[in-house]
Amino acid sequence: MSFPADMPIREQRRLAILSFLVIAAVAAIAAFVGVLALNGGTHAGAQTVREYSLEIVPADINYGGGNVWHAWTYKLAGTETGTVPGPTLTATVGEKLVVHVKNNLPHVHSFHTHLSNYSLENDGSQMNVISGIGAGAMIPPGGSYTYEFDLTEPGLAFYHDHSGDGGGTISANIHQGLYGAIIVKAKDEPAVRDEVIFMGEIGSETEGKEIPTYIMNGRGVPGGEHGLEHLFHEKGYDAVAAQLGVTVPVIAAKVGEEMHVHVINIGDVIHSFHAHSVTHLSTGTLDGANWSAQVLPLAPGQSDTLQFTFTHPGLWLFHCHVVQHADAGMIGIFNITQ
Amino acid sequence: MSFPADMPIREQRRLAILSFLVIAAVAAIAAFVGVLALNGGTHAGAQTVREYSLEIVPADINYGGGNVWHAWTYKLAGTETGTVPGPTLTATVGEKLVVHVKNNLPHVHSFHTHLSNYSLENDGSQMNVISGIGAGAMIPPGGSYTYEFDLTEPGLAFYHDHSGDGGGTISANIHQGLYGAIIVKAKDEPAVRDEVIFMGEIGSETEGKEIPTYIMNGRGVPGGEHGLEHLFHEKGYDAVAAQLGVTVPVIAAKVGEEMHVHVINIGDVIHSFHAHSVTHLSTGTLDGANWSAQVLPLAPGQSDTLQFTFTHPGLWLFHCHVVQHADAGMIGIFNITQ
Amino acid sequence: MSFPADMPIREQRRLAILSFLVIAAVAAIAAFVGVLALNGGTHAGAQTVREYSLEIVPADINYGGGNVWHAWTYKLAGTETGTVPGPTLTATVGEKLVVHVKNNLPHVHSFHTHLSNYSLENDGSQMNVISGIGAGAMIPPGGSYTYEFDLTEPGLAFYHDHSGDGGGTISANIHQGLYGAIIVKAKDEPAVRDEVIFMGEIGSETEGKEIPTYIMNGRGVPGGEHGLEHLFHEKGYDAVAAQLGVTVPVIAAKVGEEMHVHVINIGDVIHSFHAHSVTHLSTGTLDGANWSAQVLPLAPGQSDTLQFTFTHPGLWLFHCHVVQHADAGMIGIFNITQ
Repeated sequence: MSFPADMPIREQRRLAILSFLVIAAVAAIAAFVGVLALNGGTHAGAQTVREYSLEIVPADINYGGGNVWHAWTYKLAGTETGTVPGPTLTATVGEKLVVHVKNNLPHVHSFHTHLSNYSLENDGSQMNVISGIGAGAMIPPGGSYTYEFDLTEPGLAFYHDHSGDGGGTISANIHQGLYGAIIVKAKDEPAVRDEVIFMGEIGSETEGKEIPTYIMNGRGVPGGEHGLEHLFHEKGYDAVAAQLGVTVPVIAAKVGEEMHVHVINIGDVIHSFHAHSVTHLSTGTLDGANWSAQVLPLAPGQSDTLQFTFTHPGLWLFHCHVVQHADAGMIGIFNITQ
Repeated sequence: MSFPADMPIREQRRLAILSFLVIAAVAAIAAFVGVLALNGGTHAGAQTVREYSLEIVPADINYGGGNVWHAWTYKLAGTETGTVPGPTLTATVGEKLVVHVKNNLPHVHSFHTHLSNYSLENDGSQMNVISGIGAGAMIPPGGSYTYEFDLTEPGLAFYHDHSGDGGGTISANIHQGLYGAIIVKAKDEPAVRDEVIFMGEIGSETEGKEIPTYIMNGRGVPGGEHGLEHLFHEKGYDAVAAQLGVTVPVIAAKVGEEMHVHVINIGDVIHSFHAHSVTHLSTGTLDGANWSAQVLPLAPGQSDTLQFTFTHPGLWLFHCHVVQHADAGMIGIFNITQ
Repeated sequence: MSFPADMPIREQRRLAILSFLVIAAVAAIAAFVGVLALNGGTHAGAQTVREYSLEIVPADINYGGGNVWHAWTYKLAGTETGTVPGPTLTATVGEKLVVHVKNNLPHVHSFHTHLSNYSLENDGSQMNVISGIGAGAMIPPGGSYTYEFDLTEPGLAFYHDHSGDGGGTISANIHQGLYGAIIVKAKDEPAVRDEVIFMGEIGSETEGKEIPTYIMNGRGVPGGEHGLEHLFHEKGYDAVAAQLGVTVPVIAAKVGEEMHVHVINIGDVIHSFHAHSVTHLSTGTLDGANWSAQVLPLAPGQSDTLQFTFTHPGLWLFHCHVVQHADAGMIGIFNITQ
């Protein structure tokens, strides 16, 4: 669908949804006719199907010195180990996203997304069980389920567990590591480098005394920036370098390289995101405008896509601007070179 | 006032306020002349007056099983019982909103709004008492006061108590239930279904052991979504259904039906709002754009109007995305049918 | 650089950054050639240099009754005493902002800004020490450093300490008072009155029993609005007036006077900003649109510029809409006269 250039976004969105409803109604009639005639199953026709297979598995996140998080993760089938966050799922508006999920953990888990305009069978919540529609979307230990989404809206979304089984709260299960990003591209969107940063609280299943309270992409370094400086004074540069990629997430890029940095607060407390020296253009919320003073606010569940183009080389900090959270470990580095 | 279509909103707003100032100045002169000539009182002229009568009264919110909140409420005069939130006041730009408030509680209370461009006599705050201007706007027990507002700006606003009498803090009085919504329509705004959702913390005057900490429109179900699923497994669907409308707020709507969902955080801690399967178009903040990943951030006092059009039938959860708050009871259901 | 009026902001920003990169590259070559030829130092050419000299010094903030905050401040060189916040630095896009900072406190401190597109030497963070590039930007006791910024983007920014020395956390050092605002005007921006309001938590070095937990521009009055009303009933108007400008910040302005009110949350907990009777137009975040229901959300580090034009005279409260924070003292007054 294409709109006049001067039509307000709001009107475009409204028409897009109305038009989707008409298409859905026509498709429903066609499907019904199909069932009557042939019971022929689903036909994707010209629609591209984007398929992913995930497994819910345990995975250890190691911080060195005997400090380990026994996390729960979504692992891409065929890969060795799970990660926090889980794999980023990428697709384009108009495509069908199909996600096969196998639960290898000893409790019920699910795959709930923040996409929109999907049917109840693909919700992955308690309503599947209570309504009896798509009850298998709350996957028992050892079980599998396939979730399907007709992608109607571009932008960032994310997925996470929606089960309270095991820990007794949904919150506890998510914090144990069961989350990942979904990036839905617009049809004509130019290719760009995507980076995903999840901020949140660490899960409960940890071992060791130097465990970060707050994490970014699963990592954290108690003492934060001042701790790294202290380490430098005590043991030199190599000791700091040994933390990079282990307790401190690092993103390497070039001066002038455009990145879309997708930042998500998956935790239960307020966070905010600040990177040094780079303009924080918001393409996910503010239609390309700037977050005042380069700080992205992140209520629990809030997210945004920032368009970043560094103009100067350097080791540029990014961190939570709840400064106590940065002090507690919620820091990372953009390593920008010419 | 009508502006060229290509004039930036910011300029339109600025001109609208300047123009209002000119009108106000002319009106002040006219009023002065009127007083000199006839002492003829106020003349509304062609202006529509939108009038509401409210009473501040106690009201019990019952959660079953001996769990009760002895709330304080704004009740529409002539109705049986008070509710949390209080009645939604609706009017249109250009109208005069007149609200008569009678205080039937044993402490001072007031009616403070988040409208703009009103005079001090209608503030309902401590400044009325300290300045001596409109001192009666802090209403003593048994007293009454009439607040008036020339409506100059469309959009969502809300009202709440601004007195610290009784509880000793303004916060405590608001949390006891003294709040409600005001919806000011633009002059040419098409009719649409409006729904209001207040999120916040429950007040202090409660009885029973299963009282929700966090509530949406006065309701909450400890255990949240997982609690409902547990109830379903233990006692079946009817036990869950018995909670709907009692501890779990329910909004029924049709596929394709456009709603404006006005969500307000009236509490003192961060909340965020997420509804399953529906695109979160922000018409109150983001000019029709989408909240990234369908999560509306809600700092204390923050609000927004979301344009919702569900595309699929289902029992669709809405909840605070501070997931611990949802686990503690801050959940509701959109019951969407064909 | 000037863009067609109908070019989307996002595209303008992108082109501005790309164009800056080209200019920076040309300048780097020119500088290199300059060094080869003459080692002639820097030439500002036609560029205006905006220069400030700051000193990091202790300063007492006195609340009366033996209640004192022994704060740490950035003081404008040549002025008597430091203030919280520090001086507002104002400049225009295209100018070079040069800030000389002398550290007169017994621990390492720095001057880190939320500007963008600056080089690592001017970061004022731990990365200066660890990388060895601009290590002096973390200023030792008694030391000095000069920070330079080519201003490429209009808008609000702020500066603060980024050292964890002394208190052991960066957070503790900032909260002790080491912060201030930077306002970068667009080239063609009409002159307007600017006001700055910093919200946050008070530092740890306090004396007395009636110290506010939360402050606005360094001030706070335990008991908040209800406390002031109580004081009025007990001791009359003069007792309240004695608090104005001491525990309660006051901003005086005229009806119809346009102000840009720059509000920054420099603290570590959520705040929100609400002023009575005035429309909250957001020029720093929402492109001139209105914050729904006149409440500006402020995650830690978040900020915005509000365009305020009061239409009615009065003592108009402004306060944190975390109502418990207002009750604890986070209030101020706009004194608006005809």
